[in-house]
Amino acid sequence: MSAILKQRVRYPAYLKKLRTGEQCVELFKNGQYLGWSGFTGVGAPKVVPTALVDHVEKNNLQGKLAFNLFVGASAGPEESRWAEHDMILTRSPHQVGKPIASAINTGKIQFFDKHLSMFPQDLTYGYYTKNKPNGANLDYTIIEATAIKEDGSIVPGPAVGASPEMISVSDNIIIEVNTKTPSFEGIHDIDMPVNPPFRQPYPHTSADYRVGVTSIPVDPEKVVAIVESTSGDKVPPNTPSDQQSREIANHLVEFLEHEVKQGRLPENLHPLQSGIGNIANAVVEGLAGSKFKNLSVWTEVLQDSFLDFFESGSLDFATATSIRLTEDGFKKFYENWDTYSKKLCLRSQTVSNSPEIIRRLGVIAMNTPVEVDIYGHANSTNVMGSRMLNGLGGSADFLRNAKLSIMHTPSARPSKTDPTGVSCIVPMAPHIDQTEHDLDVVVTEQGLADLRGLAPKARAQVIIDKCAHPDYQAQLHDYLERAIFYNTKKKSLHEPQILRDVFKMHLNFQDNGTMKLDSWDQKF
Amino acid sequence: MSAILKQRVRYPAYLKKLRTGEQCVELFKNGQYLGWSGFTGVGAPKVVPTALVDHVEKNNLQGKLAFNLFVGASAGPEESRWAEHDMILTRSPHQVGKPIASAINTGKIQFFDKHLSMFPQDLTYGYYTKNKPNGANLDYTIIEATAIKEDGSIVPGPAVGASPEMISVSDNIIIEVNTKTPSFEGIHDIDMPVNPPFRQPYPHTSADYRVGVTSIPVDPEKVVAIVESTSGDKVPPNTPSDQQSREIANHLVEFLEHEVKQGRLPENLHPLQSGIGNIANAVVEGLAGSKFKNLSVWTEVLQDSFLDFFESGSLDFATATSIRLTEDGFKKFYENWDTYSKKLCLRSQTVSNSPEIIRRLGVIAMNTPVEVDIYGHANSTNVMGSRMLNGLGGSADFLRNAKLSIMHTPSARPSKTDPTGVSCIVPMAPHIDQTEHDLDVVVTEQGLADLRGLAPKARAQVIIDKCAHPDYQAQLHDYLERAIFYNTKKKSLHEPQILRDVFKMHLNFQDNGTMKLDSWDQKF
Repeated sequence: MSAILKQRVRYPAYLKKLRTGEQCVELFKNGQYLGWSGFTGVGAPKVVPTALVDHVEKNNLQGKLAFNLFVGASAGPEESRWAEHDMILTRSPHQVGKPIASAINTGKIQFFDKHLSMFPQDLTYGYYTKNKPNGANLDYTIIEATAIKEDGSIVPGPAVGASPEMISVSDNIIIEVNTKTPSFEGIHDIDMPVNPPFRQPYPHTSADYRVGVTSIPVDPEKVVAIVESTSGDKVPPNTPSDQQSREIANHLVEFLEHEVKQGRLPENLHPLQSGIGNIANAVVEGLAGSKFKNLSVWTEVLQDSFLDFFESGSLDFATATSIRLTEDGFKKFYENWDTYSKKLCLRSQTVSNSPEIIRRLGVIAMNTPVEVDIYGHANSTNVMGSRMLNGLGGSADFLRNAKLSIMHTPSARPSKTDPTGVSCIVPMAPHIDQTEHDLDVVVTEQGLADLRGLAPKARAQVIIDKCAHPDYQAQLHDYLERAIFYNTKKKSLHEPQILRDVFKMHLNFQDNGTMKLDSWDQKF
Repeated sequence: MSAILKQRVRYPAYLKKLRTGEQCVELFKNGQYLGWSGFTGVGAPKVVPTALVDHVEKNNLQGKLAFNLFVGASAGPEESRWAEHDMILTRSPHQVGKPIASAINTGKIQFFDKHLSMFPQDLTYGYYTKNKPNGANLDYTIIEATAIKEDGSIVPGPAVGASPEMISVSDNIIIEVNTKTPSFEGIHDIDMPVNPPFRQPYPHTSADYRVGVTSIPVDPEKVVAIVESTSGDKVPPNTPSDQQSREIANHLVEFLEHEVKQGRLPENLHPLQSGIGNIANAVVEGLAGSKFKNLSVWTEVLQDSFLDFFESGSLDFATATSIRLTEDGFKKFYENWDTYSKKLCLRSQTVSNSPEIIRRLGVIAMNTPVEVDIYGHANSTNVMGSRMLNGLGGSADFLRNAKLSIMHTPSARPSKTDPTGVSCIVPMAPHIDQTEHDLDVVVTEQGLADLRGLAPKARAQVIIDKCAHPDYQAQLHDYLERAIFYNTKKKSLHEPQILRDVFKMHLNFQDNGTMKLDSWDQKF
């Protein structure tokens, strides 16, 4: 037992339950229901999952020791190895990593996708364990901690995620105490689940509000093992901003300035939500370099770019359910712990993504879709309608409830044979995750379409004119005109579509590698 | 001035502003932005709108005196006359009546559709008036009252709707005091809008919670006219339950009993939300006749069936934003005012449809769609993807946030030539208002599909098996098998669709009057 472990575990009774990862393997049986801590690749358990997959690999147990696995959002590379070794039967609600996506799309993993704010709640309702033979509780929750308090409660690391809910409905709990990273004590603010009819309002009225509970309460009787972990989180390098994403960011900053001038936003805006990826990074850079001051962030995940945002002096406070930093980012974060820990707070995903709080605060939500259609519906999850990427995440929690709901995307993406072979503006999205009632603004490097108060046909005009890539503008206008002509006869002019033609751009991409059509009369 | 009017208007200064409807006509100019009170056909102004349309009719001003019109949901027959006389330029967020729907679908009215909880909020943000030349406020709000208090505040009638928000952002207010109906004083509970960053939690923790404000505060300076109204609301007779809707209701009651037995619902359930129509009526009848006691209702609109529900003794309390009764229903309601006014409360639609409160209370939401697809997306608004019916209403406010989100629909509907020509279960809904992440249960007269925790392919199996009409089961299974085969090759098996075929049932309906295909290879 390391000295640092003894120091971190301030509830000594747990230390009698110390095991190695290998010693935990015997606890697990095929078909069990497991919860893991972790969110967007950080704060997930590492030792026990690695011991289990090593065991499966060594003993050729692929498909014979497999689990129903729930993680707040994505875990680390350990779950990719589980997918490679057929250790995941079902999985929800969000995942990242080629092996998992591939197993989902070849039908090996049964994945279901859920709003990140709802997933933990529905888990506590017993919705996801209702066919479990031995009771509705999870069999095990494996949670990474960075410290244990005197009362046995758990201080998580860089992610809170769904851990409070998982722990509340778990028969057994295994705690991996990570002694490689510093203790994160003091940075969390924990709400434990309360179900109807006993639920009370969340009192949060600003990004920096704290209920004051800094660890996850747990019944010590349920803790069956403590494992020391010395593995850090492995976050791949961030995609840096580029010319295109900076153009998108410029349009957005200009729009926000305009809204302030019109009196529809205060000078320090409202709390910001920002997704992951190079556009999100460019937007954060753009805001950090703008004249906006005293900003706050109410979001799901904080990335390296937020450290620069803090350093710019424009950002007063940021809160999320996970802080997903690269190794360099974490280094900087730990070195400036005293500064960041006062300006930053990590909450459960039920709270970070709460419709109640998002709507109350008037959050400005910004996310990247796969594609947006001319009437303002967006596809966030399934390429060509069928192939799952990562999952819905919190996009719909935020976009449905934000004061300003913004989708940012390149106007086109390259296909294998055509640098603009994929238009991100299409007649109809072949999978719809965000509806036309949820988007206020669409922005591409071409421009910004303000959809507020517009009827569908006017929305289509402005999306095509402002956002579509020039290579697709004529084609999309042509579609719209044909759809209007067709539906004039049918007296169906509210949101004119031609179901016969509506996916021809997608079909042409599948058949010919580009969404550019010879003509809308082309047959498929 | 009638004696009853003098008695109802307890702020005498208003009586100096008394006008007839005709005397109000001069106030209105082409292109103005107007708010009307009213929700689902009750509580809307009648005298001034009638005077205006009479004026237009008499002077052939069709298209020359037209307005941007906002009503909480639908108003009464007066707005149908406005539509017939080309008096509506734009309209939001919900409407009922053939003339309006027809004008929307022939492109005369620019209609935009919005969540009923969000519409009033976005109006106060200035989103819908941002292109208005003379400032962001509405030019006029015309509101029906049943009394005026000593401070000039307004006691509405059977609907609160968006009136609090409209009044808060209106330059001028016209009050129609309805002296035909009794005063509704005491039945309302009013929240006035507060915008970010100053918003506080809604304190509601049960259906019967009251903040204690029973009238809508108003700046008396803004009241430019008081008009006496002696016209009652005209609600068409309710569609009674029938064999099919009773079968749907039976499946639902059985399901709720099962959930109680499994411990996932308490014995008195959670507050219920129920839509409009004969299935909703059958469900209310089914619940009234069931063994459930001490029920409560948190919904958008109460219909005649709720009076019987109260009489059954099973319903303790009901709250909504409107009480939409037939003439007979209102008679019964007024005769038993003392009983009903204690068990019933009307709130603003921002509160009745609040995601915050719906999620907190764990509401059980039940709504009827146009169609549901095999993966659990639903179309609530646009027939064949293009033709607007009434609008989204509050369906998505409730279904996104409810503890149990239920869609009930007949499995099939008749077309002109085939008694089951339209399947309500389709491969892909051609307009999506509710996503797969929002539905827990689909129920038809055939059976009930419990989708909780199921991956898309499993969802498709259970929806086809339990809910589809027997005339369509083989065809839908055939589609699913082909889609799985096709997407196996493409490694896109998460939610298998064939974009080439996905709307063939709809296309066949358009071409041949039935969704029954000869084969999936049929060309369109």
